[in-house]
Amino acid sequence: MIRIKFKTLEEVIEKTFLNEGIKPNKAKLLAKIMAESSLDGFQSHGINRVPMMVEYIRKDFIKPKNEMFQIGGSNLYKQFDGNFGIGPINAWECTTEAMQAANENGLGLVTLRNNNHWQRAGTYGWKAANEGFILICWTNTIPNLPPYGSKKNLVGNNPFVIAIPRKGGNIVLDMAMSQFSYGKIASYARRNKELPEFGGYDGNNNLTKDAQIIREKGRHLPIGFWKGSSLSFVLDIVAAILSGGNTTRIIGEKGVDTGLSQIFIAIDPSKFGNREFQENLIFQTIEQFKSVSVEEGSDIRYPGEATLRRRKENLEKGIPLEEEIWEKVNGYL
Amino acid sequence: MIRIKFKTLEEVIEKTFLNEGIKPNKAKLLAKIMAESSLDGFQSHGINRVPMMVEYIRKDFIKPKNEMFQIGGSNLYKQFDGNFGIGPINAWECTTEAMQAANENGLGLVTLRNNNHWQRAGTYGWKAANEGFILICWTNTIPNLPPYGSKKNLVGNNPFVIAIPRKGGNIVLDMAMSQFSYGKIASYARRNKELPEFGGYDGNNNLTKDAQIIREKGRHLPIGFWKGSSLSFVLDIVAAILSGGNTTRIIGEKGVDTGLSQIFIAIDPSKFGNREFQENLIFQTIEQFKSVSVEEGSDIRYPGEATLRRRKENLEKGIPLEEEIWEKVNGYL
Repeated sequence: MIRIKFKTLEEVIEKTFLNEGIKPNKAKLLAKIMAESSLDGFQSHGINRVPMMVEYIRKDFIKPKNEMFQIGGSNLYKQFDGNFGIGPINAWECTTEAMQAANENGLGLVTLRNNNHWQRAGTYGWKAANEGFILICWTNTIPNLPPYGSKKNLVGNNPFVIAIPRKGGNIVLDMAMSQFSYGKIASYARRNKELPEFGGYDGNNNLTKDAQIIREKGRHLPIGFWKGSSLSFVLDIVAAILSGGNTTRIIGEKGVDTGLSQIFIAIDPSKFGNREFQENLIFQTIEQFKSVSVEEGSDIRYPGEATLRRRKENLEKGIPLEEEIWEKVNGYL
Repeated sequence: MIRIKFKTLEEVIEKTFLNEGIKPNKAKLLAKIMAESSLDGFQSHGINRVPMMVEYIRKDFIKPKNEMFQIGGSNLYKQFDGNFGIGPINAWECTTEAMQAANENGLGLVTLRNNNHWQRAGTYGWKAANEGFILICWTNTIPNLPPYGSKKNLVGNNPFVIAIPRKGGNIVLDMAMSQFSYGKIASYARRNKELPEFGGYDGNNNLTKDAQIIREKGRHLPIGFWKGSSLSFVLDIVAAILSGGNTTRIIGEKGVDTGLSQIFIAIDPSKFGNREFQENLIFQTIEQFKSVSVEEGSDIRYPGEATLRRRKENLEKGIPLEEEIWEKVNGYL
């Protein structure tokens, strides 16, 4: 493990994407997004994804010259087609569009079809919350989770975000539908450690905490069994029908995680009441979390708290990266 | 167990509420809402809740003469104060308001503070979907679930609804944050049956499938451990700050499940694309669910499917009710 300064990482990623033919302003924004995910500790959607993005550009799944275009809407809701361009850039712009509508009207809804993977869902939640907006957003994915009772993966590990602006640190729920992220499962498998709770099924259809077996079998556990897979199902359907895009089923037929459907709902809380009153309501709830006795070694955290802590630490000390991935990305330069 | 015709149940509930001083038009609507929950098989928010509502009216927690009033908003979003009136009636009206805004503008947001328990969350999802709208809605509650690591209940078992209109049967996700509903836990405890999955904690802080112990200890398991409790937390905060109402923390201080904060987001899917195309997308996904091999005795259902099946059966055969509760409610007449 080495520690790399945020600015250094950002520059290396930017150069990598420039080399792949991405325009300067887009390469800059994309590098910021990817490097910030690494800064926040989400390597699986940060630097670790850079090689796959490069591969997808070279295979023409990601078409960096393609621009997103509007296909419908009003001043309140807008429908875009991502045109198989750069996923995080399109999602970033849709977040901005939703916030603009919310700024004018209190709330705004943006749909995006035919987008590529937007990488870390929380990126858009943090962006909106940083600018004072509540954001509810989600994407569908390839089918990679089994509905309860199914031996086959039919629903997606759709991330669902609810972000709330807060002076003392934004609240950002960035929650995919599987009990553990693939990054976490991989990390436990590498360290040969048992998961803290059941994370998927083994070959005999039994729940297991064995990360390696879950990786091999590819049957991750949806949160709350039937509840998580049902939530995944409705998020998929709403995203597809409102955007006029693909469902998880159709994405699965293609076999590549591209042509995704995404939803962005922004709300301006300042139009709904006094911001200080709102901040105070949140503060009191968080204070209460901190005041109760917990299990030894445990800590009740609000969503986003650990991210902020990692960000501060990594900004100061540098971002801990595996040497292998750092060398690999530098190899593109 | 006896079977009671829907119309009979509806009439008995209506008379009960008329006797408690609820105005005729409100008693009629409230009876329809409660009887339909029973019809759909949700006794815990149907007839079984009638005695508690009567008690709350008599204790003046529910003030049936109080009218909901608007406290802010525009043509797109409206903020109401429930004025501690009849929970399901206020929530019903807010759903209508959200749909009206969506009908005009594509989407609409309604907030409701100081409401009483709205009973079954799915009620509002079914209503909206029946009228052709997507509805996303939720409420906060008293603190009755422990955040991950906490021995104390600090977050609410907030139900979260996403409803989607569909000709062949609406899709209605009505999902509270606990792995099992209290009604289901009670039913397993009564039959002395083990839960199919872990449902809560025992006195030694260990996960258990023992419904009776979970009832006694009152520590239910949030879906997906930290994920469910985090989702509960953000739903609570968004509901409270947008409505200008109470958080779960404040409701907990009162100790009574009243003065709740609720959110209703309606979307008109017909403004976002061709309805037939949308129906077809949904149909194909559901078809795929039905086509895969599943575990013996299992069945992959879309959210709302089992409800519709029960509704049809109970409309025909009568609603299966426990004699005790049927007699108790008739005792109010």
